[in-house]
Amino acid sequence: MAEEIPDRTPVTLIGLGSMGSALAEAFTEAGHPTTVWNRTAEKAAPLVAGGAVHAEAVEDAIAASPLIIACLSTYEATREALAPGAAGLAGRSLITVNSGTPSGAREMAAWADGHGARFLDGAVKNVPQAVGKPDTLLYYSGDKAVFDEHETTLRVLGGDTVHLGEDADLAALYESAVGGTLLPALLGFFQGSALVTSRGLPASSLVRYSVKWLEMIASILPHLAEEIDSGDYTRGASSVGLFHDAIPYEAELAEEADIDIAWHQPQHELLRRAVAEGHREHSISALVEVLWKPQPLGQGSSGAA
Amino acid sequence: MAEEIPDRTPVTLIGLGSMGSALAEAFTEAGHPTTVWNRTAEKAAPLVAGGAVHAEAVEDAIAASPLIIACLSTYEATREALAPGAAGLAGRSLITVNSGTPSGAREMAAWADGHGARFLDGAVKNVPQAVGKPDTLLYYSGDKAVFDEHETTLRVLGGDTVHLGEDADLAALYESAVGGTLLPALLGFFQGSALVTSRGLPASSLVRYSVKWLEMIASILPHLAEEIDSGDYTRGASSVGLFHDAIPYEAELAEEADIDIAWHQPQHELLRRAVAEGHREHSISALVEVLWKPQPLGQGSSGAA
Repeated sequence: MAEEIPDRTPVTLIGLGSMGSALAEAFTEAGHPTTVWNRTAEKAAPLVAGGAVHAEAVEDAIAASPLIIACLSTYEATREALAPGAAGLAGRSLITVNSGTPSGAREMAAWADGHGARFLDGAVKNVPQAVGKPDTLLYYSGDKAVFDEHETTLRVLGGDTVHLGEDADLAALYESAVGGTLLPALLGFFQGSALVTSRGLPASSLVRYSVKWLEMIASILPHLAEEIDSGDYTRGASSVGLFHDAIPYEAELAEEADIDIAWHQPQHELLRRAVAEGHREHSISALVEVLWKPQPLGQGSSGAA
Repeated sequence: MAEEIPDRTPVTLIGLGSMGSALAEAFTEAGHPTTVWNRTAEKAAPLVAGGAVHAEAVEDAIAASPLIIACLSTYEATREALAPGAAGLAGRSLITVNSGTPSGAREMAAWADGHGARFLDGAVKNVPQAVGKPDTLLYYSGDKAVFDEHETTLRVLGGDTVHLGEDADLAALYESAVGGTLLPALLGFFQGSALVTSRGLPASSLVRYSVKWLEMIASILPHLAEEIDSGDYTRGASSVGLFHDAIPYEAELAEEADIDIAWHQPQHELLRRAVAEGHREHSISALVEVLWKPQPLGQGSSGAA
């Protein structure tokens, strides 16, 4: 059991799923007086064994610390859980760490403001096992004074701790913008695994190459972002046409291995639309132009940049 | 202009697109006598300036070197280009470096064999700019004796040079299995870029976070592959249900930012099917099970592993 260290800021953790528990554990291990609350109390047991205090009522959990971190599934679930203790939030710092949309974050910020809480919205950009590591990224947006006051405490959760800006919805915006790569990238890997296992080879034999491939993809993002920001798609290394002309191979491949690649069809549709709109010779980053919904008369197709 | 070094193996490069040119340039820079051929001859000019010899006829290009590397768009295009000189392939080593399916690679290997060539199929797992770097991955499959004989020469193209096995189609299999992540991962990034630019923020502000996110994805692949290989999906960190329950947020998000996320719909369909088939509490890697096409009566749904 970790020792509490006197000058450490007391922290309350609301919501003890796998991520919330990992956050609470990082605080107890760093010697922060840590109070935890969860709708079902048994989740608190391992944390209490590690030195945390379990509050029966959310009011008590809120009253215990100047810094409250809520790690629930949604903003709605957060407000619902906090509601019985909302009166106690006045003057305290409230940080939410859950998935949601930018408008959800703005609504949450307004709710916190209505209860006199100082608010940050945040996101842990990694798995629970990575919490507390020097390279783990967490970003926050909202009241910069709250971030500055608690930055040292927040760095306990990960060494790469960033404040994105005063607008409370920026963390949700970046969270959504970054997170949208996860499912498609994983599906790509699962499909690759289906391919090699269909040949009697283990999925693990693919890992080293897929990791290297993700590194390659990461290495080209700065250039692709430049193209998107400049709107100049004429100097890319891989053209829309190159991807477009590879479409038939995917079908052959799926046929050979008995794999369902229906999830690719709308991606192919985007490639076809991009070619139809004159992007054949353009960099693959020009696909961003066909992701915009058709705008009504008089508006450009691309957002403010 | 690079000096030729006497003990370097002469190499012929057929096909001078951006990748083929990068390969040829790496050989001339490393002092290999390099002969190049391309259907349209003007592509050869910068390479000739760098010390390569341009062969007018493909027959002469083949006759010039014991090692012929063809970097064309398809196996069909490769056979068509080599056909006039096919008689000269007997006893030489032929390496193809193009995209294609495993069955395409087998057909290519049979063609090469029919002309008495010793055959390897290969793939450059990176962009042309990365050719020649110590960390750049290239893999080959087919005649191991060819690989062993030319390994030093092939390492000129990238320090991470691997022979996958004697079956000529393994390079195409891994190429397809690994490569399938590219378009979906890029689309995820482009969609994220559309989101942040719709807010007036540059796509470049997203890069640092997206790179870190790709690193996170890479870090979980070994565990996901283990789950797939063992068929035990009960100990995953992120469940199918977690992804499934996030579906409505994507629609909200797209609505807020005026982004077309139709390309996600079949991915959502896979999540719904996985939940319907009892995988809600299973690791997200269980999606591999729904990527298999329904099998006729009496066969299992999962391939040999």
